[in-house]
Amino acid sequence: MSKAPEPSSRSRVAPFLAMDVLREANSLAAAGSDIVHLEVGEPFGPAPRTALDAAKQALDAGMIGYTEATGRPALRERIAAHYHDRYGVEVAPGRVIVTTGSSAGFVLAFLSAFDAGARVALPTPGYPAYRNIMSTLGIEVVPIETSPQTRWEPEPEALGRLAREAGGLQGLMVASPGNPTGTMISPDRLARLVHATEETGAWFISDEIYHGLAYETPEMTALAFSDDAIVINSFSKYYCMTGWRIGWMIVPERLVRPIECLAQSLYISPSALSQAAAYAAFDATEELEARKEAYAENRAFLLDALPGIGLGDHAPIDGAFYVYADVSRFTQDSFAFAEAMLRETGVATTPGADFDERRGSRYLRMSFAGARRDLEEAVRRIGAWLG
Amino acid sequence: MSKAPEPSSRSRVAPFLAMDVLREANSLAAAGSDIVHLEVGEPFGPAPRTALDAAKQALDAGMIGYTEATGRPALRERIAAHYHDRYGVEVAPGRVIVTTGSSAGFVLAFLSAFDAGARVALPTPGYPAYRNIMSTLGIEVVPIETSPQTRWEPEPEALGRLAREAGGLQGLMVASPGNPTGTMISPDRLARLVHATEETGAWFISDEIYHGLAYETPEMTALAFSDDAIVINSFSKYYCMTGWRIGWMIVPERLVRPIECLAQSLYISPSALSQAAAYAAFDATEELEARKEAYAENRAFLLDALPGIGLGDHAPIDGAFYVYADVSRFTQDSFAFAEAMLRETGVATTPGADFDERRGSRYLRMSFAGARRDLEEAVRRIGAWLG
Repeated sequence: MSKAPEPSSRSRVAPFLAMDVLREANSLAAAGSDIVHLEVGEPFGPAPRTALDAAKQALDAGMIGYTEATGRPALRERIAAHYHDRYGVEVAPGRVIVTTGSSAGFVLAFLSAFDAGARVALPTPGYPAYRNIMSTLGIEVVPIETSPQTRWEPEPEALGRLAREAGGLQGLMVASPGNPTGTMISPDRLARLVHATEETGAWFISDEIYHGLAYETPEMTALAFSDDAIVINSFSKYYCMTGWRIGWMIVPERLVRPIECLAQSLYISPSALSQAAAYAAFDATEELEARKEAYAENRAFLLDALPGIGLGDHAPIDGAFYVYADVSRFTQDSFAFAEAMLRETGVATTPGADFDERRGSRYLRMSFAGARRDLEEAVRRIGAWLG
Repeated sequence: MSKAPEPSSRSRVAPFLAMDVLREANSLAAAGSDIVHLEVGEPFGPAPRTALDAAKQALDAGMIGYTEATGRPALRERIAAHYHDRYGVEVAPGRVIVTTGSSAGFVLAFLSAFDAGARVALPTPGYPAYRNIMSTLGIEVVPIETSPQTRWEPEPEALGRLAREAGGLQGLMVASPGNPTGTMISPDRLARLVHATEETGAWFISDEIYHGLAYETPEMTALAFSDDAIVINSFSKYYCMTGWRIGWMIVPERLVRPIECLAQSLYISPSALSQAAAYAAFDATEELEARKEAYAENRAFLLDALPGIGLGDHAPIDGAFYVYADVSRFTQDSFAFAEAMLRETGVATTPGADFDERRGSRYLRMSFAGARRDLEEAVRRIGAWLG
């Protein structure tokens, strides 16, 4: 009998600590603990009424079958119209790919744009799934360390130097508003990043999942600056539909068929029920703007309350619903710090190591997408614990 | 300005023709044609009543959020119990991974078991997504050509030779009941295949998505013969939940954490709504057995009717809901044949090239999971067209 086979090397990706914390928090809650969830980036409360009603109608109508791999044509058209309505940018419906959440958008973007061995620049800190997916797909991540001094934004000027140092870059990926920092890249800087990337012959990928959630200045899509940008978005955040796993991408024409073929084999199609609900979510502007207003109030509450409990040192919260706080006055190991906080206060947060392998041990991410009373309770518990 | 970047080499996977036909058929139907769908392998009619009710309850309950990346603990326990109830096999709930359809099961299995460059044996004809996913993930497919003479089954005796010829194999993947053939591997032969594979130190992967749909003899899970087998299953076929995109895998303990970490980044979690519905689908045995009875009647109808229209040369239909018919007396190009049939009769079928690159041009796959009246109409139209 031969030796039993072992897991592959490429499956050794880092855990997504936010999801590990969620599992631990759920397990503590199941055992009777009173947990306040600030660890996962998901809106409090259900999908908008129009989406729920559309889902119920789909359930009553009967068949919930496979759809086209790139999504229902009507939904692709609706998403294309959204770019006209929101940004004044024209997008042909054929360039819209409906995906199983932005997660599938990342996988499809990386597979279709990059071969194994490609080098792709990623600002750090950033969403851990980018580098984990790239790593398992054999793509080399070239980190761009950003800093609080430059509002955690990548510098267009650095790109040429980075490309030379890395022996060529095949892509740059950015997110604005960013996760975990919440900072935004100005339209002018975004345009310069797009052009600098395209000048090196590389792909520009823009994660716009937190669009719709900007508190100071409006956000702009990378498509305003180039039809060649790959844009990834989702119904999870602004549209409050995380667990529905539904999102979209806009891609240049020449990527549509490769992505369609990949999607056919890797996903067959996105959830039909979620597509029906997502279509209707575009009609929920009033309800969704009220949610955004609640985040804005949560944000104001935290901006006011955090300094008093020693957590006032954080990135400017331009958008999204996160506080990325420097906790180095309390700990040099934010992972142990978050674990102790969860165990001793029942407040679940995400350690910065998820977002920044080198410097994350000094940071903690807290989501303020939850209910106001939970935030108040969290501030009370953390304040007592640190005080 | 540099040259604009091109799609990656690894995105050049073959289209899944069944999905291309679906798109074409939907587009013809939208333009007013009366289409009979035999192209996609999906049950006619909605998910079972218990699943629909559970989905509605989840919609009413509010929050449909992210779940654990490996699925809700209660659903993992329910699936584990299913192995006890159905096969008398004990599976720890911790070895169950809930997935976004079997599609995600394939991606997670291949990524966690095989590095780029691995060689994996696949019986041909077979489900095209296997080889497409392997190809985009850098895995070399080693085809095992099966034939009608051996009921399209792979021979355990061939495995050692194949491994030597290929310079070593890292895996063998089988499906029983098979797609497109509908043939089943006997429990005895399955056991020998599992053991022959494990003796070479390779992974054995068993696609059991058509379990529950066997018409002559009951099917057996590969887990009955080894705890080290990777088993992939889904709620799409027996449970009639295709468009819900929900499935599961059973894996050996040492793959659980690598798969969990991959799933966190590649999927975050399976659809929460679909998980709620899937849990309830286990309580729909009566309704689902009635569906199976309808397939059995469809099967009997076709076994009777197909010889009369020249399509009687097909694999034995042990299970699943497909007829894989030899159409070489009519054409040497079943792709053009299927296209002409769709255009001229409105009957959508899948050309064999989807399942067998070399010999598929002589075959056509027809699904009999649809309504009886559609099958009768299809036989009438095809008969008139060929006659």
